[in-house]
Amino acid sequence: MEISKSDSAWLHPPVNVVREAVARALAEDLSPIGDLTSSLVPPVLAEARIVSREPGRLAGTMCVNETFAAVDPDVVVSWSVDEGAAISAGEVLGIVRGPLPSILTAERTALNFLGHLSGIATLTNNYVTAAAASGGKARVWDTRKTIPGLRSLAKAAVRAGGGRNHRGNLSEWILVKDNHLVGIGIAQAIATSRDRWPGRTVQVECDTFDQCVEALEAGADAVLLDNMAPEEVEACVSAAEVRQGGQTRRTLLEVSGGVNLETIGAYAATGVDMISVGALTNSARVIDIGFDLG
Amino acid sequence: MEISKSDSAWLHPPVNVVREAVARALAEDLSPIGDLTSSLVPPVLAEARIVSREPGRLAGTMCVNETFAAVDPDVVVSWSVDEGAAISAGEVLGIVRGPLPSILTAERTALNFLGHLSGIATLTNNYVTAAAASGGKARVWDTRKTIPGLRSLAKAAVRAGGGRNHRGNLSEWILVKDNHLVGIGIAQAIATSRDRWPGRTVQVECDTFDQCVEALEAGADAVLLDNMAPEEVEACVSAAEVRQGGQTRRTLLEVSGGVNLETIGAYAATGVDMISVGALTNSARVIDIGFDLG
Amino acid sequence: MEISKSDSAWLHPPVNVVREAVARALAEDLSPIGDLTSSLVPPVLAEARIVSREPGRLAGTMCVNETFAAVDPDVVVSWSVDEGAAISAGEVLGIVRGPLPSILTAERTALNFLGHLSGIATLTNNYVTAAAASGGKARVWDTRKTIPGLRSLAKAAVRAGGGRNHRGNLSEWILVKDNHLVGIGIAQAIATSRDRWPGRTVQVECDTFDQCVEALEAGADAVLLDNMAPEEVEACVSAAEVRQGGQTRRTLLEVSGGVNLETIGAYAATGVDMISVGALTNSARVIDIGFDLG
Amino acid sequence: MEISKSDSAWLHPPVNVVREAVARALAEDLSPIGDLTSSLVPPVLAEARIVSREPGRLAGTMCVNETFAAVDPDVVVSWSVDEGAAISAGEVLGIVRGPLPSILTAERTALNFLGHLSGIATLTNNYVTAAAASGGKARVWDTRKTIPGLRSLAKAAVRAGGGRNHRGNLSEWILVKDNHLVGIGIAQAIATSRDRWPGRTVQVECDTFDQCVEALEAGADAVLLDNMAPEEVEACVSAAEVRQGGQTRRTLLEVSGGVNLETIGAYAATGVDMISVGALTNSARVIDIGFDLG
Amino acid sequence: MEISKSDSAWLHPPVNVVREAVARALAEDLSPIGDLTSSLVPPVLAEARIVSREPGRLAGTMCVNETFAAVDPDVVVSWSVDEGAAISAGEVLGIVRGPLPSILTAERTALNFLGHLSGIATLTNNYVTAAAASGGKARVWDTRKTIPGLRSLAKAAVRAGGGRNHRGNLSEWILVKDNHLVGIGIAQAIATSRDRWPGRTVQVECDTFDQCVEALEAGADAVLLDNMAPEEVEACVSAAEVRQGGQTRRTLLEVSGGVNLETIGAYAATGVDMISVGALTNSARVIDIGFDLG
Amino acid sequence: MEISKSDSAWLHPPVNVVREAVARALAEDLSPIGDLTSSLVPPVLAEARIVSREPGRLAGTMCVNETFAAVDPDVVVSWSVDEGAAISAGEVLGIVRGPLPSILTAERTALNFLGHLSGIATLTNNYVTAAAASGGKARVWDTRKTIPGLRSLAKAAVRAGGGRNHRGNLSEWILVKDNHLVGIGIAQAIATSRDRWPGRTVQVECDTFDQCVEALEAGADAVLLDNMAPEEVEACVSAAEVRQGGQTRRTLLEVSGGVNLETIGAYAATGVDMISVGALTNSARVIDIGFDLG
Repeated sequence: MEISKSDSAWLHPPVNVVREAVARALAEDLSPIGDLTSSLVPPVLAEARIVSREPGRLAGTMCVNETFAAVDPDVVVSWSVDEGAAISAGEVLGIVRGPLPSILTAERTALNFLGHLSGIATLTNNYVTAAAASGGKARVWDTRKTIPGLRSLAKAAVRAGGGRNHRGNLSEWILVKDNHLVGIGIAQAIATSRDRWPGRTVQVECDTFDQCVEALEAGADAVLLDNMAPEEVEACVSAAEVRQGGQTRRTLLEVSGGVNLETIGAYAATGVDMISVGALTNSARVIDIGFDLG
Repeated sequence: MEISKSDSAWLHPPVNVVREAVARALAEDLSPIGDLTSSLVPPVLAEARIVSREPGRLAGTMCVNETFAAVDPDVVVSWSVDEGAAISAGEVLGIVRGPLPSILTAERTALNFLGHLSGIATLTNNYVTAAAASGGKARVWDTRKTIPGLRSLAKAAVRAGGGRNHRGNLSEWILVKDNHLVGIGIAQAIATSRDRWPGRTVQVECDTFDQCVEALEAGADAVLLDNMAPEEVEACVSAAEVRQGGQTRRTLLEVSGGVNLETIGAYAATGVDMISVGALTNSARVIDIGFDLG
Repeated sequence: MEISKSDSAWLHPPVNVVREAVARALAEDLSPIGDLTSSLVPPVLAEARIVSREPGRLAGTMCVNETFAAVDPDVVVSWSVDEGAAISAGEVLGIVRGPLPSILTAERTALNFLGHLSGIATLTNNYVTAAAASGGKARVWDTRKTIPGLRSLAKAAVRAGGGRNHRGNLSEWILVKDNHLVGIGIAQAIATSRDRWPGRTVQVECDTFDQCVEALEAGADAVLLDNMAPEEVEACVSAAEVRQGGQTRRTLLEVSGGVNLETIGAYAATGVDMISVGALTNSARVIDIGFDLG
Repeated sequence: MEISKSDSAWLHPPVNVVREAVARALAEDLSPIGDLTSSLVPPVLAEARIVSREPGRLAGTMCVNETFAAVDPDVVVSWSVDEGAAISAGEVLGIVRGPLPSILTAERTALNFLGHLSGIATLTNNYVTAAAASGGKARVWDTRKTIPGLRSLAKAAVRAGGGRNHRGNLSEWILVKDNHLVGIGIAQAIATSRDRWPGRTVQVECDTFDQCVEALEAGADAVLLDNMAPEEVEACVSAAEVRQGGQTRRTLLEVSGGVNLETIGAYAATGVDMISVGALTNSARVIDIGFDLG
Repeated sequence: MEISKSDSAWLHPPVNVVREAVARALAEDLSPIGDLTSSLVPPVLAEARIVSREPGRLAGTMCVNETFAAVDPDVVVSWSVDEGAAISAGEVLGIVRGPLPSILTAERTALNFLGHLSGIATLTNNYVTAAAASGGKARVWDTRKTIPGLRSLAKAAVRAGGGRNHRGNLSEWILVKDNHLVGIGIAQAIATSRDRWPGRTVQVECDTFDQCVEALEAGADAVLLDNMAPEEVEACVSAAEVRQGGQTRRTLLEVSGGVNLETIGAYAATGVDMISVGALTNSARVIDIGFDLG
Repeated sequence: MEISKSDSAWLHPPVNVVREAVARALAEDLSPIGDLTSSLVPPVLAEARIVSREPGRLAGTMCVNETFAAVDPDVVVSWSVDEGAAISAGEVLGIVRGPLPSILTAERTALNFLGHLSGIATLTNNYVTAAAASGGKARVWDTRKTIPGLRSLAKAAVRAGGGRNHRGNLSEWILVKDNHLVGIGIAQAIATSRDRWPGRTVQVECDTFDQCVEALEAGADAVLLDNMAPEEVEACVSAAEVRQGGQTRRTLLEVSGGVNLETIGAYAATGVDMISVGALTNSARVIDIGFDLG
């Protein structure tokens, strides 16, 4: 019974997604003939340390476990650091023990998951830290701008980095953007959404203060303030405050567009609730994590 | 008969890979209920321009075509720019015509492919350009450090950016690394490879000049000079030249490790053949490409 | 360009789901050897009318189209009735034209989709009608009590019957049930949800009036009033009214448990917003729809 | 070694089907982000009783086992009732032990299988009991009128309910229906079947006594008496008796059409062998089975 | 409308099987990087003749069509010979027209299907011819001894060669072999089969004349006479004749074991109905069919 | 820890391929209803010996292990002979222990893998032995002429038989054939290959001595001498020797076309490196391996 892992359970991707992603990754690395090079290596037992070469946040441990298990059930992985934890350069994150050829066959696939997902967690954490530095309460979340086929894993990595998840896909909630508003007004879009899709979050993308007020008054659950300057955002926050101050369920205000590590603090200071950053999932560089045998 | 596309045929990923990747990406964005928001939009015909917001290299057009076709066969995509072409900020890359709701449903998935793959092509091209600036003949290629599940598409994008592809997976050729050399010497590894896996490229990773000489003399098809300074690389190139000067089939010399946009010129000037850069496929940021309706 | 279908676009399941469901259904009916009996039939052209043997609501037309297309692209289906429409006994719903053996091979699979999904739509419509008869504004929606593997199609059929869709799966929103409240209070559950899963609907299942007040005051987006008598529900509606009367975004109140065609009117008259009925998707009998050749 | 399960082995679906169906069902409930609500719950160990809320027949235990195993191998299911057994209201069918969040994540999917398949088993058993009450020897079996994608599981549930399985798909045997007889006579259809598909059951659907005699004389292995009154069926039974009385291998006589719980007794009393009921697999309501934690 | 193909419709495999088999075959030949060599070839239009290098029987045309369509919809295949037809050395079987690189990419996969399946058809036809030469009425059919994953295609090829198909899998009918008879007698096995699996063919494998009589008297639908000499088979045929001479539905008598092209005539002359030959599907050599360009 | 298996690790197919192939094979044999016949058999424990009925080479043990594990984890397989070993008629290759019905259900699928793959290994070994008898150093390898969907397993079986693997697919290396040379010369093809696909083996198919010299001088890594007489091959070998005698990395010379067990010795004696034989993977008959219970 592995209870300790469960404290960070909400940071992990669903188990079915992990299984499918690993099966696909191994197929892409092993087919059709297998690992030619490892076939040269004698089947001695070996131990490899998973070592971070740089500081960051750890994400992807379930994928690593599954990768080794799928290649060879005789390989055992034990972690000394939890999913979502801060890691430092040179830190030993875990140990892999088992037949050397199996470890070598699985190594690159395991590290590709770990490096990419930890890269997302680390970039996320940089944004989270920069937002927090402003003293504002704004939190950072992701977008649907994800690398195709990897969304579920990427969104889990954002959580591991201290971020939160915007809707998972087109089915989870309504987000009315400018292109949807061609020939349908904000109030009408919200009303139709309430009619057809009750219970779901209805969010409206607004480019101007006036649009924001329109969305607030039409009862949007969330407003996305797109490409506004911090002072415009502040005005929208005030407008929402005036209208909804005493309510337990305030409209969620989100900022997007033009947010980077330099500007996020100014946005976070406006009092906005959420800041979305597409870069978390479409522009994170890898974190350098390696295997030390011996 | 669409012959014009074929001039760049070698830059594209295989058609079966495109079909599977798009099916998976749509499933991840549409399941279980579909695109709630587009369901609010009247089924008018629309036209959207695919516009680059920044300069770069274009990759991923087949994925875009397949995405729209899979969502709605009535949507037609026509490109004004070829796969692999240089694109500039504000340039119209193509036009999408069809029912507005279908276009909006497919938009993000299409752009996720296009932005990510063009990001790889663009970063690749930056490295290619930096390498060429040195006047050397060295070419840039990728590694197996790819985002899991996307390797085939990523490697095609590297080609679109002017790069080349290192082995596609563990099955394509032998690459003997330090961890494989635990308990087996270079000459033995090459000899066993020739015995078991004839016809395949046999490459040896070397950390030192002496190892490189050992690999050359043992008849490696390619040597990977890992984490060497440019002057060490130059010495290895000379050693290879001395040994193989008059031969039609020289050992391919590759540099890896510590290569970035600042250092690549120095390595390219050494006379080495190939420079591998993991960042091409695991650290490319997205290229900002958008949809303009109207 | 098939624009007319789009008026009912929001009633249909996503296209990727239809493709996969039909492929799976055909594999289960044709493998390994194919349709032995149709192989006896000469390849004459035929025309079959799709005829309803009883009144109801139509759902599943996209699945029928895809089934025939997958068996033989030469078969053409044309519908005289739209998805979601009321149908009467003896009504011709559509015409199928093509080679007789192909029609016979696809017939049962097509009708299995059509009968099952129309059955869901019809049962849903019965509940919708019974609820409306009370004069209340309550709408009917489904649950996650669906037949495994068919959820996406079943939920679309509920829409075709005039119902709405509760969350599509465990990922779409939070629903805190009694079993989750073992060792965590309502307020804490909502607060943790707001922290970890911002933007998402947070619903709380309540068995008593006091629990409902607790959930309302803790700011739940929706409250599920489980197994309450209509008068208890009324009291909860009043409590919500008192607390949220002037707000644009009221907590959604849902009734579940003990709802059937006899009792739904009494619940609908309480002023509650939504009534969920598991039976829609786990207990709908088939609607008898047949093929008339000739 | 789990031998006890094997006494009812023939009632279970094939193991490969169970694995695929469960994987698909979990994907549909967990993707893309996972179970948001269970992520709020502390990882305490828990025990849940699987309790029937109403009498019926149990089916689907293998699917339940697989569902919990796929979500978390640390969850253990133990049954106190066998597949196919009669169950009573309030009866504890089994116990599930393991981490609470895992149990809650898997609960609905497990119950969806169990409730649906037990619903089929129970409805089947009602028909079986009603047929037996007539004192006839007729047995009840299913049809190809199944919910798409679930046929293998549904047919196993029919067996668990005391029914039998008609052909599994179009490949298993020949069933010549009226639509096949457009332009081909019964004798010719049987002769061609014997020629092309030797060894396979050849069944002919007949609407009249004369057709039945024709089929018997042409040597059909089975005759489906469609939409006949009980007295017509009796005449067909006599006709078969006269012709095949002394043979070890009588033509199997099956009744279909217009069979319900009220009429089945009259048909069963005719001496017919089999009665097919489409409702078993396309119109069974769920059996209410729940989880009691404590 | 392609009616002409339908005359041989029963010889073809199911369309869903063809699609899946071709998708899998292309993935295995193209992943991860695609067809490197064809990428060197200019996209000129080309025409290739599909030419048989030796006589035989043609099978696999649907797989060839699907292979080219999946690689490039611009490639058109037209056949001058039907599925199942006799082909001679040097005969042009069909023409493929389209872009040269696409033709070259698909060529080997298409020929692998065509050569293997025509090999099965040809070997089958050799057995069919040898059996017919004896003047007996015995027909040849296959077994479940097929190459894994190819059964559906292989069984279609047997039909194309003039053979018939034994059961498609373990689900289609009962075949009680010696290993099943450990602890259960023939009569009991048949009785239990009739009880549990009505309507299905029940076949019993017999090693001796006495066993055959036992199976006949117990009412087996078919008897497999395994490893008997022709004279023993003749005795069994007589025994069946005596017992069932006047019946329209005789027990099907099948011979298996020790059958080859030399011995099949003697068996066919015994009056037995069917002769099964595992070699048809597990030992057929390829038929040499090639592509002639230009 | 199962170390002993690793000595022959390079002979086995990749583990992901084995899992997928077995899942597919079981689905094809068990769907939709399962193994009807084994359901008649009591669940006693049994032991079966896997026995070879004829001499040969063993291949496919991993597939057998996986087949039994997938049907029933309680079945245990233990081998007394290693993958790739010579086996004799009557030899016990391994023992299978577990519940009798599970063993019978899996038996045919397991034997289909084992017989087919051992057939490939045995035929390969016959060619290897015949080649070696000439005293030449030529080794035998396979082609892409494989049965669709089975390539990875087939190529592993070739290794088990003492052969080697030509390229695994179109992606692994360049092989310029006559049809590619329509409108592109050998030197140009090689130069373009070196430009576009560095690091990869570039092989050229040659029909004449002159072409071979052209390919050698253009620096091909390998030359395929197609349909040449042994004396022509000898001339090519000499030409290569003259040009590359002192080099560590000689061009690999391969013979193909017109090679059979009678002629291979003459080719092997020419000094050529490799002889490719399509028959290994497209024309191997099964090896007769059976199950002895009791």
